[in-house]
Amino acid sequence: MKNYHMSPEEFRKQGKQMIDWIADYYDTIEKYPVLSQVKPGEIKDQLPATAPMESESMEQIMSDVNSIIMPGITHWQSPDFFAYFPANTSGPSILGDLLSSGLGVQGMLWATSPSCTELETRVLDWLADILQLPEKFKSTSAGGAVIQDTASSAALSALLAARERKTNYESNEAGCMGNLVAYVSSQTHSSVEKAVKIAGIGKNNLRLIGVDENLAMRTDLLEAAIQNDLKAGLIPFFVCATVGTTSTNAIDPLAEIGEISQKYQLWMHIDAAMSGTAAICPEYRFILNGVEYADSFSFNPHKWMFTNFDCNCFFVADRSVLIKTLSILPEYLKNQATESGSVFDYRDWHIQLGRRFRSLKLWFVIRHYGVNGLRYHIQEHIRIAQQFAGWIRESADFKLIAPAPLNLVCFAHRNGNEFNRKLLELINSRGKMYFTHTVIRDQFTLRMCIAQTNTTLEHVSKAWQTIQETAKELENMFNNNPKSE
Amino acid sequence: MKNYHMSPEEFRKQGKQMIDWIADYYDTIEKYPVLSQVKPGEIKDQLPATAPMESESMEQIMSDVNSIIMPGITHWQSPDFFAYFPANTSGPSILGDLLSSGLGVQGMLWATSPSCTELETRVLDWLADILQLPEKFKSTSAGGAVIQDTASSAALSALLAARERKTNYESNEAGCMGNLVAYVSSQTHSSVEKAVKIAGIGKNNLRLIGVDENLAMRTDLLEAAIQNDLKAGLIPFFVCATVGTTSTNAIDPLAEIGEISQKYQLWMHIDAAMSGTAAICPEYRFILNGVEYADSFSFNPHKWMFTNFDCNCFFVADRSVLIKTLSILPEYLKNQATESGSVFDYRDWHIQLGRRFRSLKLWFVIRHYGVNGLRYHIQEHIRIAQQFAGWIRESADFKLIAPAPLNLVCFAHRNGNEFNRKLLELINSRGKMYFTHTVIRDQFTLRMCIAQTNTTLEHVSKAWQTIQETAKELENMFNNNPKSE
Repeated sequence: MKNYHMSPEEFRKQGKQMIDWIADYYDTIEKYPVLSQVKPGEIKDQLPATAPMESESMEQIMSDVNSIIMPGITHWQSPDFFAYFPANTSGPSILGDLLSSGLGVQGMLWATSPSCTELETRVLDWLADILQLPEKFKSTSAGGAVIQDTASSAALSALLAARERKTNYESNEAGCMGNLVAYVSSQTHSSVEKAVKIAGIGKNNLRLIGVDENLAMRTDLLEAAIQNDLKAGLIPFFVCATVGTTSTNAIDPLAEIGEISQKYQLWMHIDAAMSGTAAICPEYRFILNGVEYADSFSFNPHKWMFTNFDCNCFFVADRSVLIKTLSILPEYLKNQATESGSVFDYRDWHIQLGRRFRSLKLWFVIRHYGVNGLRYHIQEHIRIAQQFAGWIRESADFKLIAPAPLNLVCFAHRNGNEFNRKLLELINSRGKMYFTHTVIRDQFTLRMCIAQTNTTLEHVSKAWQTIQETAKELENMFNNNPKSE
Repeated sequence: MKNYHMSPEEFRKQGKQMIDWIADYYDTIEKYPVLSQVKPGEIKDQLPATAPMESESMEQIMSDVNSIIMPGITHWQSPDFFAYFPANTSGPSILGDLLSSGLGVQGMLWATSPSCTELETRVLDWLADILQLPEKFKSTSAGGAVIQDTASSAALSALLAARERKTNYESNEAGCMGNLVAYVSSQTHSSVEKAVKIAGIGKNNLRLIGVDENLAMRTDLLEAAIQNDLKAGLIPFFVCATVGTTSTNAIDPLAEIGEISQKYQLWMHIDAAMSGTAAICPEYRFILNGVEYADSFSFNPHKWMFTNFDCNCFFVADRSVLIKTLSILPEYLKNQATESGSVFDYRDWHIQLGRRFRSLKLWFVIRHYGVNGLRYHIQEHIRIAQQFAGWIRESADFKLIAPAPLNLVCFAHRNGNEFNRKLLELINSRGKMYFTHTVIRDQFTLRMCIAQTNTTLEHVSKAWQTIQETAKELENMFNNNPKSE
């Protein structure tokens, strides 16, 4: 019989070469330009327009990886990557994910791999304890948690559960009616706006509440907006508080928002996508003060806890609302365990039906590092970021644009927006480091997020030198040739 | 400086051991009970209630994998797995996924790794050609494709794009108004009902159209339902046609549904989650006849094309509608490439913002097998399934319950529903094979889906023997002790 499958011997050989390839990549990662320097279409044009009819060797494929794919990689795992929020990873995570790929189980139901469900439940209970979340978020109470792909999906799930709870599960049946209102701050991540659109709420029914001088939600404005909507005959149902906004790491006042949520019976969701990780350290746990008011909470170990993408942890205080919102049980998925009511079927906890064994990588990471190891490296990132913030404070040319409570520093050169934009582009175009921007009160703002696994003080110190030198260079260019600007 | 990270040397050592572990697993996979035999709570109870404070070794972790996790695995990659739809995988896919984990890039924007976007676009254009999809679904026309996690998410994305096109993008702004109507057959996958709820359409506005004797959608009933809804002042906007329903692999009449969609200006989505793969073989391409009418089409290489979960390919005829529906552009994601309009930013093509480099595994699979290799193994699966269907046809005790056009065979013992239910439970509880059921016109129906990568005629022949022998055994039990039943 013919057989095109990779033989077990070939898999062993190629697999070990791939492990070496990855280890070599990390050994040499600082040689690459961090931000890929290719032009649109440059990668695609090198790939054949049609698929091969006959089998090709792994040698051919890896040769193309090296020559075609690698120049088009922006190196998220480079210690010189300071852009966006990170998506960091680690050895144990890669190995846990490899095991997941190898086992190839699909954990939509408890029965389709009990370990996939039960390890996930256990590890998320661990995390609830490490983060000192209230008992209500644990599987041993009325709540529980699930691994979702991203904070976007978690926010959508929270919004849907809120919608159904508020409308007595009637929106699922009759559809939305354009009268539910959700609240976020002007700094809340765009994923909530996207979720509001997806869920049929409508962007017109999303209120962007103003922020204080620290870019945190103003609860006086929140309450005023709610009262205004009630007067107009609308139905307030959902508020998202953020712990660590994407722009500046601002932290909304959870307890105050929580009290308003209780008063007006809103579902309170907390998005702590990156910064939630800091709360594993006792000295930063204060950022979650007020989480006891929340109906749901999510953070991403795939951002800042050495667990590779995708791994969002989504906690709910009352799992029955979430399950009732998202459950569908066709005949072909019925089984004894489900009918017994004694198991979780995680496909009822999110949008998708199918799911891979993602808790393995999280379990590997927590066990490899231990809680103390995780804390140590998070503390280090924050310590280094604070050092960088100190350099900015002392600098004559640069200034801080927002408070830097944790590992994100927002700053700008005093020469104004156009200068900062050019500075960012010039540095990124040279590939020695990669950072990105935001706009705060019309100020074009540079962001340094310090969170890649292997980033040390030396990398950040080198980055600071690059930023200062390039700014000088740019000033000279401006001075020598002001017209061309 | 302290450092809890896994050293490069340790990663090389542990990584190679993991490769060997996976190869050993596939070498011995037939020794395990296919369906895990553990009871609810049995896995969780063996895992410590709290996370370790100190670092643990990979040896400790892998020891727990072997002793605690493995008994709770249902072996989706066993050649004796015939349940649900498959989630098959292969050596090149595991290696492509490993490379993706190692690179750890997050491809939300073109700029955040151009290769992640451009390889995906290219490989999906390949697939459009291999499946002989119309030109409109290729990136070189007004359409294009994206890798989503699952067919559920693809169906939701299609439904949202349909909703916005029909309401002039007003639902995104004002919210849903409870007057849009979607159409599926009574056999359509539950994911569309879930999507209808999520999108604020409401289950009351989902029409389950009756089916013909082959369990395919009856288009006379579809048209009557549309006319009825129009008369009631409602707005028909979406129809989902299925190529290979989950229950029985029924194939809806695409061209007829397409003509009705055009007549009434409905968005036509085709869900070909598993069976779409068969269309890569010229002799089975007929199952997609009529795809030229569709606005969107999706199928899952992670089901039946040797690419590990998750990998759904979602094609749209007019990408601008999808992008306009799902696009959000906050300041912190703005960049030159996006502003130039010359690139795809795939985060605008699906629900999530973040995304991993999933096209690598698909590219590895297509190149490793070549189109001819893929065709060969798909043809083999269908050939074996047809042989099994033949045995059922010739059997005095069993009968076919639905047509078996491809690789799924629906059958039942003539002894009635309770007997079939017990037969299924008894066989699955013994672990030699795993298959599942559906209910067709009140008939409890056994399903054999032949699609795992390493399944051969011998495995199916052995399964048939097991089924026959266990049925005899059960008949004897019934006859000897009829009262206890």
